[in-house]
Amino acid sequence: MASHNYKVLIAYDGTDFHGWQQQDNSHSIQALIRKAIEIHVNEPIPLIGSGRTDQGVHALGQVAHFQASKELSKSRFLYSLNGLLPPSIRILDLEQVSETFHAQHSAISKEYHYHLILEPFIPPTKRLYAWRPNQPLDINLLRLAAPDFIGTHDFTSFANKGSSSGDATRTLLRLDVLEEEGGLRLEFEGTGFLYKMVRNITGTLIAIAQKRLPENSVPSLFTARDRRLAPEGAPPHGLFLVNVHYPKY
Amino acid sequence: MASHNYKVLIAYDGTDFHGWQQQDNSHSIQALIRKAIEIHVNEPIPLIGSGRTDQGVHALGQVAHFQASKELSKSRFLYSLNGLLPPSIRILDLEQVSETFHAQHSAISKEYHYHLILEPFIPPTKRLYAWRPNQPLDINLLRLAAPDFIGTHDFTSFANKGSSSGDATRTLLRLDVLEEEGGLRLEFEGTGFLYKMVRNITGTLIAIAQKRLPENSVPSLFTARDRRLAPEGAPPHGLFLVNVHYPKY
Repeated sequence: MASHNYKVLIAYDGTDFHGWQQQDNSHSIQALIRKAIEIHVNEPIPLIGSGRTDQGVHALGQVAHFQASKELSKSRFLYSLNGLLPPSIRILDLEQVSETFHAQHSAISKEYHYHLILEPFIPPTKRLYAWRPNQPLDINLLRLAAPDFIGTHDFTSFANKGSSSGDATRTLLRLDVLEEEGGLRLEFEGTGFLYKMVRNITGTLIAIAQKRLPENSVPSLFTARDRRLAPEGAPPHGLFLVNVHYPKY
Repeated sequence: MASHNYKVLIAYDGTDFHGWQQQDNSHSIQALIRKAIEIHVNEPIPLIGSGRTDQGVHALGQVAHFQASKELSKSRFLYSLNGLLPPSIRILDLEQVSETFHAQHSAISKEYHYHLILEPFIPPTKRLYAWRPNQPLDINLLRLAAPDFIGTHDFTSFANKGSSSGDATRTLLRLDVLEEEGGLRLEFEGTGFLYKMVRNITGTLIAIAQKRLPENSVPSLFTARDRRLAPEGAPPHGLFLVNVHYPKY
């Protein structure tokens, strides 16, 4: 029987879920979407995401793929899935792709945004979608240190255990510091990210901006290859997975 | 005993509360703040808001006033109140004001924003803070009809019962239609608003933009003075009370 490979584009509010995928799969976003697809296609399917996001992390453009034995209508699929899923998860798009497409392995880069509030109080309507560091900080120090992360490095000092083991070399293509209402948005684009890497880089930038670390700390943290030497990571709720990029296919 | 009059600036996420103030006061924002102030000042106080907001309506700049027999330190008050209150309510500012200041009666204008999403799906992280009308609409029709609401009118057709009875004449100073990410923001500024007036005007603008009402309907709706002739109001969760303006005092 011919099998069709489908790419799905997904957005979610991570607040109420145990992340994209958890060991016990109790209330994971991946498990909820997989079950809804199984109801729609009426057969068991595996659903492979581009990567995990932790509890509290949000997504505007998570990507996953699955195979189904029958051909699917995009409009019916979106209507059906979004009816089965809670409003905190939306399926934005469905696309039939070549059988070699793999949501994780085919990805060439990913884009994450981290939202920081720098006002005295976090606006209640943003409290689940941005982080307010509770000490003042110097934005210029943050701007000066950010480019130190760009390029190809061994990110061991910025990766929590739980990453796929092995080589910790990754390439950060872009780390832009942009002003937005109430604070800053850090935009990360990279070829791949280790476990909690964006949150750990953000935590280190905040520590530098708060003068808890010297401004030129990043190169020596790369060299040290020791997670314990870099500051605590930023909390999950400020983080959004915005885009996963694939080659034209 | 001398009494001091205080103005407080308040932000809240209306999602989890029964509005600013409800008949039974069960879980109202006003009751929670009043109780927290009473703990801080150690005496019973009335807390008067600039006006009510419904369940689900948010505020970035609600204003209230209260009188206390002792002089208060702003920094201690903010620290104490924000520790006593849930993160979905923040006290942003405290200011001692003249004894004639009244949060409702002294207000000269108020500013509300209504957020509309015009994408095929509402982003999960905005679902509690914006409304997505579920039929397509023509933004130009909305832009053309909006100015018809500006000025001094009898707003009976756009006010639900439950307003303070009497004259329904109000002056809408401004109704700006601004593009923002994913949709539109309607900015309303007026000398006073009747019960559900902003949501009812928004509902009528959407009906015109969806061609469920002729584009020149607004003047005849004003003349009719009949709430039943104007369309259903927009839901509460897209609405934010942004500012309450007072004369210099």
